[in-house]
Amino acid sequence: MSADLVQLVTAIAQRARAASLELATTPTAAKNAALLRLAELLPAASADLLAANTQDIAAAEANGLAKHEIDRLTLTPERLAHLAESVRQVAALPDPVGATLESWTRPNGLRIDKRRVPIGVIGIIYEARPNVTIDCAILCLKSGNASILRGGKEIFHTNTAFAALITQALAETGLPADAVQLIPTTDRAALNTLLKLDTLVHCIIPRGGESLIRFVAQNSTIPVIKHYTGVCFVYVDKAADATIAEAILINAKTQRPGVCNAAEQLLVHADVAKEIFPKLAAALAAKGVQLRCDPASLAILSISGPDSQLSTLNSQLSAATAATAADFTAEFLDLILAVRIVPDLETAIATINRDSSGHTEAIITQDETTALHFQQAVDSAVVTWNASTRFNDGFEFGFGAEIGISTDRLHARGPMGLNELCSYKYLVTGTGQVRV
Amino acid sequence: MSADLVQLVTAIAQRARAASLELATTPTAAKNAALLRLAELLPAASADLLAANTQDIAAAEANGLAKHEIDRLTLTPERLAHLAESVRQVAALPDPVGATLESWTRPNGLRIDKRRVPIGVIGIIYEARPNVTIDCAILCLKSGNASILRGGKEIFHTNTAFAALITQALAETGLPADAVQLIPTTDRAALNTLLKLDTLVHCIIPRGGESLIRFVAQNSTIPVIKHYTGVCFVYVDKAADATIAEAILINAKTQRPGVCNAAEQLLVHADVAKEIFPKLAAALAAKGVQLRCDPASLAILSISGPDSQLSTLNSQLSAATAATAADFTAEFLDLILAVRIVPDLETAIATINRDSSGHTEAIITQDETTALHFQQAVDSAVVTWNASTRFNDGFEFGFGAEIGISTDRLHARGPMGLNELCSYKYLVTGTGQVRV
Repeated sequence: MSADLVQLVTAIAQRARAASLELATTPTAAKNAALLRLAELLPAASADLLAANTQDIAAAEANGLAKHEIDRLTLTPERLAHLAESVRQVAALPDPVGATLESWTRPNGLRIDKRRVPIGVIGIIYEARPNVTIDCAILCLKSGNASILRGGKEIFHTNTAFAALITQALAETGLPADAVQLIPTTDRAALNTLLKLDTLVHCIIPRGGESLIRFVAQNSTIPVIKHYTGVCFVYVDKAADATIAEAILINAKTQRPGVCNAAEQLLVHADVAKEIFPKLAAALAAKGVQLRCDPASLAILSISGPDSQLSTLNSQLSAATAATAADFTAEFLDLILAVRIVPDLETAIATINRDSSGHTEAIITQDETTALHFQQAVDSAVVTWNASTRFNDGFEFGFGAEIGISTDRLHARGPMGLNELCSYKYLVTGTGQVRV
Repeated sequence: MSADLVQLVTAIAQRARAASLELATTPTAAKNAALLRLAELLPAASADLLAANTQDIAAAEANGLAKHEIDRLTLTPERLAHLAESVRQVAALPDPVGATLESWTRPNGLRIDKRRVPIGVIGIIYEARPNVTIDCAILCLKSGNASILRGGKEIFHTNTAFAALITQALAETGLPADAVQLIPTTDRAALNTLLKLDTLVHCIIPRGGESLIRFVAQNSTIPVIKHYTGVCFVYVDKAADATIAEAILINAKTQRPGVCNAAEQLLVHADVAKEIFPKLAAALAAKGVQLRCDPASLAILSISGPDSQLSTLNSQLSAATAATAADFTAEFLDLILAVRIVPDLETAIATINRDSSGHTEAIITQDETTALHFQQAVDSAVVTWNASTRFNDGFEFGFGAEIGISTDRLHARGPMGLNELCSYKYLVTGTGQVRV
């Protein structure tokens, strides 16, 4: 690794640390002014931004990237307007910094205030989506954190143009320019250097595919908040309302199949499987969902075949095939669903706790006791009762913004908004107390 | 690394994970019953425990360990009684699990409950203190976490005897025996295996010296909560009450100099240094504290020499020497204090934010505006005003117990009690809501 690169990244982190100390006590109005200035600059600078983006797209085409990958890279005036609007929305959110979380007085008269403060310096490691540069920078800024951004090489020119605009907005509103810095190289050695600067950088958030996150988690000596994708289960209980079950399953599986809170796995209680599952299968088939079935669920579809009202759907149901073992822990991110029949609630819970990724699970039931037990015993970040798995989302939770959905258990679990981008500290106030 | 060892440690982690799922919904009374049974067993089994301890001490003597190191290893009936009492105290604490931390309803009617839950499986990596086995096991158990303990080789027989007693208490009260497991080897390969089991173990807490903590942080792919030691500052402001300053400084430096929340660094405002510092120096000298002074503070001691009332202390003050650069970021853990004169409050804050370890800092002042600004701008876990740094402690905060004092900013910062050994999850309750 070149000494220059180490020096470059270390200097960035040192400047970020200095900026973070200033940001920690920057008033809300000043942070909002910088955000609102950025929102103005984004459409105003659209010619420059689109020109930079064109360079990235040309390189992507030359490198033979697939059409959908190129689409993800592409900026348009509409996408820029949308981005500017999201910056305004973050400016309008309450400032998480400075809130007193708890306060108490000890018998010796010491008053202890637990105060929410920024984490400090946050490194964001991401791939090819251009909006991440703006999204992450503004959430870190609003929460008083300095950020160091390291984006993918496919979008380097666009990121550089965005970073210049952010620096301009910071400078014009009197905030430290080093509050948001882009690492000006996509050399992996620079990333490796960053991940070891544990005295200057306090938190790393990788945003991207599983291999990126694993690389970061394995190479970082800085604490990492991981946003792995989800193997999410829907369990249809024996006391399920069939209409609710169908509506939620269709929504969880098909509304946006490529995201982490989409359903990938279906469990159906044996007592109602013969009645409910063929209807669910038909509804799923009508949406183009392929089923990967265990023997019991496959048998139900065969039995319910020629004689039933479902016979017209049999051709579609031919999309139901026998599942492999791997299907039962798979994250398909596609219109595919694995299906198992379970004999009882406890088996459903044990199956989920063994095979899910702990992201989001749903139970469909009208029985409150069953639902509460399921919610308590299932060891996942979000456990819904008669609600779609798709609600595990910062906006749907009312956080007003989201930097990701944590699959970790320390610090933040589930949707991460501005509060989750903060730490806390204790202010202890006395009149001369000493320890005896 | 031997395949057997990998298999052994992996099997321990798998059993811990299974136990953690059971513990997560174990009622408070059942956890307390196991704790109280352990408290009974400790003195009852004292002959076995002391015999095991004798083996460790014999080995330590054969290996030429220093007297104070052997003393730390040594169990006595008194220490066992004290340990049993601490188990009873943890049994008497409120159960942190199950509390609703927040609850709100969304416009679409979804109710969201944020519920405190155990983290899951916690690995504790520690060195030679025998009480850690009991301390950590009981705190993890009370907070519903399964624990995997890996102690140092110097105390292996004692730890094994303690672990057998814990297993007995768990079994006799119907809790899963795998809730607390000791790794039955001190082979470092076993530790390296454990630190990579990130799908089974959710958190690692190293307890010991800095080199142990660094080793764990660098080799773990599991999130680590670090408890580094402290380079703690006391800043005597120009508006300080001299009596309070002396009392707090003496307490912070000398009450227990070998611990992480003891003061190591003194800053004195230039406006009052000539008046206050000689008195502080005399008081410190009377307690046997060596001073490592910057030129300005050393000059004050020289000037205040022969003519002043302090002349009788001059011989003691010969313990004041010129500081090296390294002294100003040193954690002495001894009766040594580095001293600097600062021209103003902002220099004090900047000095602390550059040179401290972010653990605990104190300001001595009668000026509220100064104090509040200091508390806000100093970027440390605990910032005291007219109170000793020694109060950064779980018991002193009223937590009733402490697994350590976190120097991290994620998850837990400062004293870690039972609440900090927990994560949370969201229970989302609907009536069929889907995402649009």
